[in-house]
Amino acid sequence: MGDEELKELGWDEAVTLSSPHPYVLAACRDRDGRANAIGLGWWTICSHQPPLIAISVGVPRYSRECIDDSQEFVLCLLGEAQAKGAWLCGTQSGRNGDKLAAAGLTTIPSLKLATPTIAESVLAWECRVRQRLLVGDHVLYVGEIVATRGRSDNRRTLFSLHYRKLVAIGPDASVSADVEFK
Amino acid sequence: MGDEELKELGWDEAVTLSSPHPYVLAACRDRDGRANAIGLGWWTICSHQPPLIAISVGVPRYSRECIDDSQEFVLCLLGEAQAKGAWLCGTQSGRNGDKLAAAGLTTIPSLKLATPTIAESVLAWECRVRQRLLVGDHVLYVGEIVATRGRSDNRRTLFSLHYRKLVAIGPDASVSADVEFK
Repeated sequence: MGDEELKELGWDEAVTLSSPHPYVLAACRDRDGRANAIGLGWWTICSHQPPLIAISVGVPRYSRECIDDSQEFVLCLLGEAQAKGAWLCGTQSGRNGDKLAAAGLTTIPSLKLATPTIAESVLAWECRVRQRLLVGDHVLYVGEIVATRGRSDNRRTLFSLHYRKLVAIGPDASVSADVEFK
Repeated sequence: MGDEELKELGWDEAVTLSSPHPYVLAACRDRDGRANAIGLGWWTICSHQPPLIAISVGVPRYSRECIDDSQEFVLCLLGEAQAKGAWLCGTQSGRNGDKLAAAGLTTIPSLKLATPTIAESVLAWECRVRQRLLVGDHVLYVGEIVATRGRSDNRRTLFSLHYRKLVAIGPDASVSADVEFK
């Protein structure tokens, strides 16, 4: 630590200092059974027993409507090869089109849910919503993990830098800087 | 991505694949005004307006009692020089001693809260609890950020690998592997 004093910071500076943030896709499906996905930087595991994950989804988002309808989501961690498609899922709406197809992502049936899993996932946690809390301009869903699948041949997953750029970081803390894009 | 199929994974494998996780200290104070802090791997920003942060604290933890009493916490991101002390705060209880002193950490007054801020923080978000939700074996506190301070001379903050080891990663995705310890 340097000797610099703590000084007041704005939101942007704080979000930059707290980067990188783990970036995931929450797969969901709408009333018509159509698959959709939303890119999320705001999520965390929150309980061991039962195993629970909390995700925060903006109130106006189409995926918020989908999850409210289905009470399910699949939290999918993607790898560096999917960075561009994963980013598209965080920046475009699936309300009027097939966002997954535009992102170059495909789906496979989940083990326990009607909501599909993104086939390219490094890790996929199938979650049933157990609690819902309106928190400011977002809805916090607490989902119970009912099935977990993954692959070990692609261990680096995506993280966002200030929610503006993605990099891939592995569980050994190795970084793929060359997957960065804006 | 390789051609390997998705296969079912256990908790440990999934937590490893989803590493690294941002690791922070939540500073709090007890009924007697004593400062305490808990190491947390389970937290996330969850709203823009108002700015809200959710943290998950184990039900039996002393810090859970402190936060229930005071309805405040300061989310502190620490740097690589504080890795050992920050880890101690996640593995020992402050119920019967001065955990912060044992961790080599000091406190300064916060701007808006009676709960102090950890002086060595890279970033400190002062939070007032707005919502509380029992989620499995943890309590999820949603706190409104009422003040933010930080320093820019030490930008790498701590991340845990499978909640077992810490590394420091900067907002430019640079990694300090030499701060690793078990």
